[in-house]
Amino acid sequence: MSMDKFFSPKSVAVVGASRSPGKPGHVIFRNFFEGAFEGKVYPVNPKAEELFGQKCYRSVTGIPGPVDLAIIVVPGPLVPQALKECGKKGIHAAVVISAGFKEIGNTRLEEEVQAIAKKHRIRLVGTNCIGIYDPYSGVDTIFNPRYKLERPGKGSIAYISQSGAIGTVMLDWMAMKGYNISRFVSYGNETDIGADELIDYLSKDKDTKVICSYFEGIKDGRKFFDLARRLSRKKPILVQKGGTTAEGSTAVQSHTGSLAGSAEVFSAAFKQAGMIQADDMEEMFDFARILSTQPLPKGKRVQVITDGGGFGVMAVDGIIKNRLELARMGKKSVAELKKKLPPYFVIKNPIDLTGNAESWHYAAAIEAAMKDPNTDMVMVIVLFQVPALTPEVTEVIMEANKEGTKPLVVVASGGRYTEVLKKSLEAGGVPCFSYPGRAAKAMGVLYRYSEYRRKNG
Amino acid sequence: MSMDKFFSPKSVAVVGASRSPGKPGHVIFRNFFEGAFEGKVYPVNPKAEELFGQKCYRSVTGIPGPVDLAIIVVPGPLVPQALKECGKKGIHAAVVISAGFKEIGNTRLEEEVQAIAKKHRIRLVGTNCIGIYDPYSGVDTIFNPRYKLERPGKGSIAYISQSGAIGTVMLDWMAMKGYNISRFVSYGNETDIGADELIDYLSKDKDTKVICSYFEGIKDGRKFFDLARRLSRKKPILVQKGGTTAEGSTAVQSHTGSLAGSAEVFSAAFKQAGMIQADDMEEMFDFARILSTQPLPKGKRVQVITDGGGFGVMAVDGIIKNRLELARMGKKSVAELKKKLPPYFVIKNPIDLTGNAESWHYAAAIEAAMKDPNTDMVMVIVLFQVPALTPEVTEVIMEANKEGTKPLVVVASGGRYTEVLKKSLEAGGVPCFSYPGRAAKAMGVLYRYSEYRRKNG
Repeated sequence: MSMDKFFSPKSVAVVGASRSPGKPGHVIFRNFFEGAFEGKVYPVNPKAEELFGQKCYRSVTGIPGPVDLAIIVVPGPLVPQALKECGKKGIHAAVVISAGFKEIGNTRLEEEVQAIAKKHRIRLVGTNCIGIYDPYSGVDTIFNPRYKLERPGKGSIAYISQSGAIGTVMLDWMAMKGYNISRFVSYGNETDIGADELIDYLSKDKDTKVICSYFEGIKDGRKFFDLARRLSRKKPILVQKGGTTAEGSTAVQSHTGSLAGSAEVFSAAFKQAGMIQADDMEEMFDFARILSTQPLPKGKRVQVITDGGGFGVMAVDGIIKNRLELARMGKKSVAELKKKLPPYFVIKNPIDLTGNAESWHYAAAIEAAMKDPNTDMVMVIVLFQVPALTPEVTEVIMEANKEGTKPLVVVASGGRYTEVLKKSLEAGGVPCFSYPGRAAKAMGVLYRYSEYRRKNG
Repeated sequence: MSMDKFFSPKSVAVVGASRSPGKPGHVIFRNFFEGAFEGKVYPVNPKAEELFGQKCYRSVTGIPGPVDLAIIVVPGPLVPQALKECGKKGIHAAVVISAGFKEIGNTRLEEEVQAIAKKHRIRLVGTNCIGIYDPYSGVDTIFNPRYKLERPGKGSIAYISQSGAIGTVMLDWMAMKGYNISRFVSYGNETDIGADELIDYLSKDKDTKVICSYFEGIKDGRKFFDLARRLSRKKPILVQKGGTTAEGSTAVQSHTGSLAGSAEVFSAAFKQAGMIQADDMEEMFDFARILSTQPLPKGKRVQVITDGGGFGVMAVDGIIKNRLELARMGKKSVAELKKKLPPYFVIKNPIDLTGNAESWHYAAAIEAAMKDPNTDMVMVIVLFQVPALTPEVTEVIMEANKEGTKPLVVVASGGRYTEVLKKSLEAGGVPCFSYPGRAAKAMGVLYRYSEYRRKNG
């Protein structure tokens, strides 16, 4: 069975589709029925006649046409029966949302489900998970209603999460920020398909440029890290690890029932496998956004362009702390830029366009930095709040970014006006960061990944 | 002269008020004329007859009534003359927005301004600054228009910043998040009034509970730290330091013309003075929000209540990393809570209300933790996205917070729906954090400040 059945099925059955708004089986059916999914969706519920005007089936076996994917939302003890019926129907892919397995100590039920799946050659995502969200195909098994939890648009960052709550909350946050994704999988108990198989699949996925992951524990460490070492040479694999203290590790056991292991051991293993570890969730997506949109740099010399002196100072601190260097623009670049800019601007690093900055100042400074042979990366700090600066500056930046010759990032911070303009930059493929330190950290990661690829490519 | 003239003047003159929209002198006049300021405001501009229908004066000396505060926006070289006229008029307080002094090496002009101010007994905020924003009095010398840069509402956090850009950008961000302030001062070159005098004033200010500050350098270190040591026993003083690397320190010199000094020396001095140093701007306001709203805890035992297992794991990690402890609820508290909650909830730490959480589950769990003798602080993680949870849960939390017996914080993360509910919690005096690690760090700061006060109070 190809894993594609999970991400782009032609037909879906929702087993446990419910008539009560707010119930997971209701929200999930609605996601498919009213959302972007273009295939067929069948509600399965022995107690209902119809749902949203669609005929309800007592069992998947009663569905007339073929079914590529079953989404199972019935209570845990009813899952074995539902799976057997999937087997009879010839369904080979199922997302089991239902909980009540090893995470509450019920290993007997977990093993029963495993055995049934194996017998009928059904591959499972779950149990005890949120499942899959794929903005390209419209597959959406997230049972939180959209008004509470928005979904991000089509992008190139894949994201897998052992924790359903962390996974979905981050999707909601990404949608607000205008960050997009390729695939999302919350895989829960790993009753069948685990993180290793998902990462393997995503490493070959054409829409995915970067893989993000949240782990608490790993089932088969040796196998996983061997695979990661092989794949991280092709695509960056990012990871955030939960349960890094002894106490946190204990909490993990009662959450997903997996062993967390020591933080140091994991960090060393991630590093050896070429994986990139982030300290927190937002940082992981900082790294993912620069890695998925920007070219790999040839070196570590960063030119800073700013319209706020204090932000320039923070940028310099960030560049040094992240073991990058301040670019020293060549004489020719400086001379050419001097000709273009008003005489009161001093051309050094940072280039401070001051609170009088206008779009054409940015255009000239960015062009010079992009062309300069002594510059490898460009950090453009734009405080959109300064009086003379118009939103046109975003066009200037997107134009420079399109050439794609050197990594370019934007730092912008503030309130709603700024957020609107940052969203438009993100949509244009420009990664934006709230503070210079965060941008510098992401640039450091990009540079070190380029070094890793040069050595291991 | 009382510093009150800066924050609650009865009459203001804007010297350099301009008819061109977008010009600082236009925006500032408009702030006073159309904003919350209830006193008199006089435009001063020799080239204009009137502004917004108000008669323009050629000089402050021509203004008929008394003037408490002059705001000077003319080009740098014209500042001496403007100040002399303020002297003639009997004005003893001036905010000098104008740039072009020591920050560009023009120490002669800086010293001239100093001498004139001294001679005429005029106290100065600035030069080269953004000046003052006071939501209580409506004083607002910020020259960025409001549609680009929103202003926060009335609160109890004072904020002084050497960098105008960092200061104002954070105000814009705070307004978006629903965080409020008492006073804001961007003091620039410290030509007269410096950080020490501002902190001294704010330490006695009745509307201010916590003082936040952004520094690049300090004029008279010994005097400053002696003062800070004395004041931090009464009110928490928070600080973020720019220019912490050698290179950043060089960048500082060309920004505000002050010496930054080594990061380690500063950190040690901050600590000795009882000041609380934050790694970044958002963190500083994390600390400020918990310190300004929550009581000092009696100990370091934290109870976590969550509706997402993964967030619970991160909370435990955060508590341990920040040298706090997991509370162990007393038997009586556990027994009482068990009676109230459905039987499938396990009462330990974290209390996991799972994705089925409802408001009344939170009410019972929070009440138990607030009453429990073995619990000192309560971290309430609310993923508002879960299906059965209604916004009513915010009322439950605010009610518990009102009792004010123990520190209580909320962790909530996500998109727009969540941001709306977090804003309403903030308005109700409940500090909200995006991730458990950030909440735990702020709780650690609160606990250690309470220890500091016990030892030095």
